[in-house]
Amino acid sequence: MRGLFITIEGPDGSGKSTQIENIKKFFENKNIDIVFTREPGGTPIGESIREIILDNRFKEMDPMTEAMLYAASRAQHVAEIIGPALDAGKVVVCDRFVDSSLAYQGYGRNLGEAVEIINSYAVREYVPDVTFLMKLDPDVGKHRIEENRENQDRLEHEKLAFHKKVYEGYLELERKFPDRIVGIDASLGIDEIRDEIYRKLEEII
Amino acid sequence: MRGLFITIEGPDGSGKSTQIENIKKFFENKNIDIVFTREPGGTPIGESIREIILDNRFKEMDPMTEAMLYAASRAQHVAEIIGPALDAGKVVVCDRFVDSSLAYQGYGRNLGEAVEIINSYAVREYVPDVTFLMKLDPDVGKHRIEENRENQDRLEHEKLAFHKKVYEGYLELERKFPDRIVGIDASLGIDEIRDEIYRKLEEII
Repeated sequence: MRGLFITIEGPDGSGKSTQIENIKKFFENKNIDIVFTREPGGTPIGESIREIILDNRFKEMDPMTEAMLYAASRAQHVAEIIGPALDAGKVVVCDRFVDSSLAYQGYGRNLGEAVEIINSYAVREYVPDVTFLMKLDPDVGKHRIEENRENQDRLEHEKLAFHKKVYEGYLELERKFPDRIVGIDASLGIDEIRDEIYRKLEEII
Repeated sequence: MRGLFITIEGPDGSGKSTQIENIKKFFENKNIDIVFTREPGGTPIGESIREIILDNRFKEMDPMTEAMLYAASRAQHVAEIIGPALDAGKVVVCDRFVDSSLAYQGYGRNLGEAVEIINSYAVREYVPDVTFLMKLDPDVGKHRIEENRENQDRLEHEKLAFHKKVYEGYLELERKFPDRIVGIDASLGIDEIRDEIYRKLEEII
């Protein structure tokens, strides 16, 4: 039987990292081994691609190039890590996956369905079973990032207008895939969010 | 008016480089400026992507990842160099372009029409006006390469069976796009090939 595939999505500054730690603990407490991984990256090839994507020298990167680099990294990630782990029946938890591309490149960069089509060849049959979407107003998220990080990469430099479009994209995806995407109010307290995620995890395992 | 877009395709060892020099001379003799470029690469971003594709450490690269990296490099190449030059009415000569992906990844790696679809987003409206396809039996081409080059990259290490499939792919593309692809018998003498290419170029300029 195929393993369980869980992804976490949402804007930077929405508290994803904290809740990823909680998801890890959830499975640890149940003595269930998980494979944790993240995008972009996840493999040596993916890490090399990630370096190109985030390189501040490459400000002239075409939006379609960016979308294809993310998809290339994802194809390798699925082929090398995610696919084999799920085929072996394992639980896979991934920090960002295909919805990031749909939101950031599809909506944020206005590339539309091209991103969906290209990524379908990267994801193949390994669509997530459940995706936790951390929902936070982009103004708040942006503010949190600026307070906490000194060296911002190319994407973090993007204007707030872009982040608002991305966020609209995420909300659109939540409406489009209601069975898969679980929206989480990321303005709630950390423990409340954890409890909500745990309830959902209890339901599906 | 859009400029003229010429591409040269064919297996390694088929004499592409020599004929590219002849094509450059053809336009030089007519005092027509050309933009010469090549794939994979052609831009700083493309060169970085090229390094990943040809890296001997990355033997586990998934065929779809490879195809997407080529497409990403091409999208940047079109956006940054080829598209603007053609829009400005210039002649663009490119060493390898989309047919290389269709032959190497589509046919050689059995990825089929996925490669065509993904690349349509990279090429956009900038389909070549004429493509010279250097046709040479893979046995001969492989032999020529082994005689001449010491350090072979990852793709050149591939087995002859792969190169035969790629070559079949090229012949299939020649049948599929007879108006665009001009097949050249690369077993002919260098001067004979040059004369044939010059005749075709006289026809189209």
